[in-house]
Amino acid sequence: MAKEYKRLNRELVKKGAIIDYYHDTMQVPNGNTAVWDFIDHKGAAACVAVKENGKLVMVRQYRNALERETLEIPAGGINPGEDMRSAALRELEEETGYRAGKSEFLLSIRTTVAFCNERIDIYLAENLIAGKQELDEDEYVDIAEYSLDELLSMIDNGQIQDSKTICALLAYYRKLHS
Amino acid sequence: MAKEYKRLNRELVKKGAIIDYYHDTMQVPNGNTAVWDFIDHKGAAACVAVKENGKLVMVRQYRNALERETLEIPAGGINPGEDMRSAALRELEEETGYRAGKSEFLLSIRTTVAFCNERIDIYLAENLIAGKQELDEDEYVDIAEYSLDELLSMIDNGQIQDSKTICALLAYYRKLHS
Repeated sequence: MAKEYKRLNRELVKKGAIIDYYHDTMQVPNGNTAVWDFIDHKGAAACVAVKENGKLVMVRQYRNALERETLEIPAGGINPGEDMRSAALRELEEETGYRAGKSEFLLSIRTTVAFCNERIDIYLAENLIAGKQELDEDEYVDIAEYSLDELLSMIDNGQIQDSKTICALLAYYRKLHS
Repeated sequence: MAKEYKRLNRELVKKGAIIDYYHDTMQVPNGNTAVWDFIDHKGAAACVAVKENGKLVMVRQYRNALERETLEIPAGGINPGEDMRSAALRELEEETGYRAGKSEFLLSIRTTVAFCNERIDIYLAENLIAGKQELDEDEYVDIAEYSLDELLSMIDNGQIQDSKTICALLAYYRKLHS
């Protein structure tokens, strides 16, 4: 099977707030051309933040794409020039007030490979010291703390569906059980 | 904290091949307005397909968003009027040739909630009967079979990063270990 894909053109359709939308004109292996979607995202970082009592620090916020609030691990976009770990720990502190004394890389995900390059690196953050939330002007985030068992039940009953949060919680579960 | 978000407008920017791009004008709780991205996706379904020898049936395909091939669980978009389970089993058969004698709901994910409504329902497919791949004209998919341990190692070393695949494999791992 010939597997030669060739991008003939990438056209910017529109720049957005956190993504940019492109049309890729692709030559597929049979010689046909097709226009495929491409969403460019600058990347993000996230934390599984675990307190000494074993509770995980989660955030609840409104998501216009789902028209509802979601429960997620703390996360946010990378600033220009910032490394992934620094971004993860900065977002943890801004969104929850917690500073982590210790952090460890857990895994890196690509959220939706069929049309988007978004990458999220996820860290385990421990030795947490409580501080003050520092949200952006238009940002509203509630903090909630749950045990891992409570969060796994929320995956099972569909209350947690966010993919980075599920990848992170199940990777942490596997780390504890292997 | 006031938590009233209100969408003042949703403007179609451009229709795409598998997604449509919108700008949402949002009124945030402090009264400010902001334009947020919204990507509309029709939904998808996927399978963890396990053979009697314990090997999982995976697919490898080119992804223009990453400019490389990825190893993923079999998955694809929902056809109009199709239910999630039927879509998952149809995509399994089209992409790999395998028909499943037994299927069970595993979990439902939202791939990237900050800007997109894409939902993927993931099923465990078992009692597999080999058949013939039925790919679309411009679709090229290689089949590969691995043990769960091999796939978990590929998550650990970054060879597998696709979020639906990681959610699915870790959910299956947890199901086996709980």
